[in-house]
Amino acid sequence: MDDRDMDHAAVAWEAGKPLVIEEVEVAPPQKNEVRLKILFTSLCHTDVYFWEAKGQTPLFPRIFGHEAGGIVESVGEGVTDLQPGDHVLPVFTGECKECPHCHSEESNMCDLLRINTDRGVMINDGQSRFSIKGKPIYHFVGTSTFSEYTVTHVGCVAKINPAAPLDKVCVLSCGISTGFGATVNVAKPKKGQSVAIFGLGAVGLAAAEGARVSGASRIIGVDLNPSRFNEAKKFGVTEFVNPKDYDKPVQQVIADMTNGGVDRSVECTGSVQAMISAFECVHDGWGVAVLVGVPNKDDAFKTHPMNLLNERTLKGTFFGNYKPRSDLPSVVEKYMNKELEVEKFITHTVPFSEINKAFDLMLAGESIRCIIRMDG
Amino acid sequence: MDDRDMDHAAVAWEAGKPLVIEEVEVAPPQKNEVRLKILFTSLCHTDVYFWEAKGQTPLFPRIFGHEAGGIVESVGEGVTDLQPGDHVLPVFTGECKECPHCHSEESNMCDLLRINTDRGVMINDGQSRFSIKGKPIYHFVGTSTFSEYTVTHVGCVAKINPAAPLDKVCVLSCGISTGFGATVNVAKPKKGQSVAIFGLGAVGLAAAEGARVSGASRIIGVDLNPSRFNEAKKFGVTEFVNPKDYDKPVQQVIADMTNGGVDRSVECTGSVQAMISAFECVHDGWGVAVLVGVPNKDDAFKTHPMNLLNERTLKGTFFGNYKPRSDLPSVVEKYMNKELEVEKFITHTVPFSEINKAFDLMLAGESIRCIIRMDG
Ligand SMILES: NC(=O)c1ccc[n+]([C@@H]2O[C@H](COP(=O)([O-])OP(=O)(O)OC[C@H]3O[C@@H](n4cnc5c(N)ncnc54)[C@H](O)[C@@H]3O)[C@@H](O)[C@H]2O)c1
Ligand SMILES: NC(=O)c1ccc[n+]([C@@H]2O[C@H](COP(=O)([O-])OP(=O)(O)OC[C@H]3O[C@@H](n4cnc5c(N)ncnc54)[C@H](O)[C@@H]3O)[C@@H](O)[C@H]2O)c1
Ligand SMILES: [Zn+2]
Ligand SMILES: [Zn+2]
Ligand SMILES: [Zn+2]
Ligand SMILES: [Zn+2]
Repeated sequence: MDDRDMDHAAVAWEAGKPLVIEEVEVAPPQKNEVRLKILFTSLCHTDVYFWEAKGQTPLFPRIFGHEAGGIVESVGEGVTDLQPGDHVLPVFTGECKECPHCHSEESNMCDLLRINTDRGVMINDGQSRFSIKGKPIYHFVGTSTFSEYTVTHVGCVAKINPAAPLDKVCVLSCGISTGFGATVNVAKPKKGQSVAIFGLGAVGLAAAEGARVSGASRIIGVDLNPSRFNEAKKFGVTEFVNPKDYDKPVQQVIADMTNGGVDRSVECTGSVQAMISAFECVHDGWGVAVLVGVPNKDDAFKTHPMNLLNERTLKGTFFGNYKPRSDLPSVVEKYMNKELEVEKFITHTVPFSEINKAFDLMLAGESIRCIIRMDG
Repeated sequence: MDDRDMDHAAVAWEAGKPLVIEEVEVAPPQKNEVRLKILFTSLCHTDVYFWEAKGQTPLFPRIFGHEAGGIVESVGEGVTDLQPGDHVLPVFTGECKECPHCHSEESNMCDLLRINTDRGVMINDGQSRFSIKGKPIYHFVGTSTFSEYTVTHVGCVAKINPAAPLDKVCVLSCGISTGFGATVNVAKPKKGQSVAIFGLGAVGLAAAEGARVSGASRIIGVDLNPSRFNEAKKFGVTEFVNPKDYDKPVQQVIADMTNGGVDRSVECTGSVQAMISAFECVHDGWGVAVLVGVPNKDDAFKTHPMNLLNERTLKGTFFGNYKPRSDLPSVVEKYMNKELEVEKFITHTVPFSEINKAFDLMLAGESIRCIIRMDG
């Protein structure tokens, strides 16, 4: 299989312009790489941000996509723990298993394979594995799953239970695990505590689900888009706040609702203003705020230091602090054991030929997750 | 003893002007208050900030002082757990034992008695207990220990082992417990980890002592005043960085020294620039930064949100997260058991009549702690 035929990929030629399905050559995997056949992929807001490239470094032409489920097609030199036919989820952040982060119990920010949104090439040779008539097309966060075939580093691939339905668990490859883990692994609400969730997209709803599973007494959902509120009830959200409905800052609204502030907050918007509000709305003395949203490159997080001195805690997390290879298989098992429901996150499905619809749905705020079927 | 004679207190009449020893009337304690005879007090930088009132709300005339040791002289209505003769340390933050903070395991920021630097009166009746010819003199943080007698709320007084020498353990009433607790209770370095301490005054040196006791492998002291470095060796500091010696930001200097950042940092300066550096110098993935310094009222803590997203943790603490009445007696026991040395923090002693010398020594950066003997 070293000389693959042409495969189809959705190429972003320019910032903000519809993707174009092209015939793309996908080179074989090199040392410590695997080539995957993607069966299902879904759209996450991070793809949209880098495709819009408004507050992000533009890099085009590029193949986006990082939430997906697939099957190993071939493996490169030195790959011993994956083989063709394995069911896998590619992940935008990797786990080399050898660096200080991979050895630390606290971190999942692998020195070698952590998310790098500016790199468009493979680390082995600094080249892309995608090309059209010899002209390279750039990778995105080491996954580029908007393609029938893609090449990833072996450290960015989690081998999962082959009985798990890939059209469902593909959403665990980024957003759902990120939000759920941000709550259960990082914010860690205690039973009976109150939790505010900023942003009720897939990530925020998964964070709410984490709060519900943790036994939170109140789950306050904050979003600028009121159409999110009805949906959010299914995810355990008990109260809603739209910052647009108030003259005072939303952190003040929440403090007034909760006798001084919530016990925990999880920010899942990418808006720096929401990050500041999510921090300032937690109760002094014990409140913990967790940032998940990906900021723009010129954003500044700004607060009075007294808000910190008053014994609040502020943290950030990638991928819900899960180590992709070590921990993601067990998140899939949570789905298999019905401890974690993923179906309710999947609001739409489109064939690959209509991938731009998934972008339209997200931009209109209509979808939570839209699955893209690669066979269609 | 309801009509006390005139007692002596050091009154700050104006911002930045030398204190004047005056005859002051100290009214009897009201409900839930106690009157203390102060035997020893020491000067903390927080006194100096509010006396200078450069970045702080000015409130004069005022009696400063909040690090002290004394004996209960009389108790007001409803006070049952203290009696005349008890040896006590007054504390700038209190513990009512009834509010959500006092009930929380995580917080020591009592709703009723937490530090309030703008209030110059007692909470019972909104009046001062100090007066000169009928004119009220304001309190400071509920303690005002630069006085032979003072009145405090019972919740701001820790009853300690009467065998403990008050001329030594008085420094545990603020700075030393604050710094030591900030490290052992909040930053919690693991054995073998690296710790950076910003500011090598009493608070910072106590934080360093906490790092040493925790088994830190490297303790990096950061100060603008190089004369602090020699002294700091006694407190376990292993390396020194003076930000003035470098062109690049000190967070970068520390990251370069430590292969990406220290595991923990504790800021004990009050400078917002040092707070930002202390945060940005911790390692991504697992680093924890703890803020202790009291900022100016217009300061802004500013950082790129990506520094947070990269899995750093930022916290602040008052009084090292100790609950004054519940926990401070056991810190005194640590001194009695020789687990914690306080003598090395005490560099100077002056009689009460020379209290302004203590200010001069601190402003010149010459003292760590200067004890003021009230009998002198
Ligand atoms: N840290 C990580 O590992 C990680 C992983 C995946 C996604 N993300 C980020 O998480 C964020 C959420 O992703 P998603 O896929 O759920 O996106 P989404 O677009 O589906 O949801 C975001 C929601 O936030 C709301 N919102 C925007 N600004 C707001 C504001 N100021 N106040 C309140 N609500 C606001 C929007 O209306 C929307 O409903 C994005 O920033 C994404 O890049 C981070
Ligand atoms: N949070 C609390 O509960 C609490 C309690 C007590 C004191 N404090 C605060 O802790 C701080 C330290 O108190 P202290 O009594 O040790 O004061 P100090 O004056 O003895 O020590 C402060 C040290 O910080 C150094 N410094 C100042 N700016 C610096 C900078 N930008 N970079 C590096 N070093 C710098 C000074 O040279 C000095 O050596 C003060 O801000 C004080 O108000 C807080
Ligand atoms: Zn994503
Ligand atoms: Zn690694
Ligand atoms: Zn103090
Ligand atoms: Zn209380």
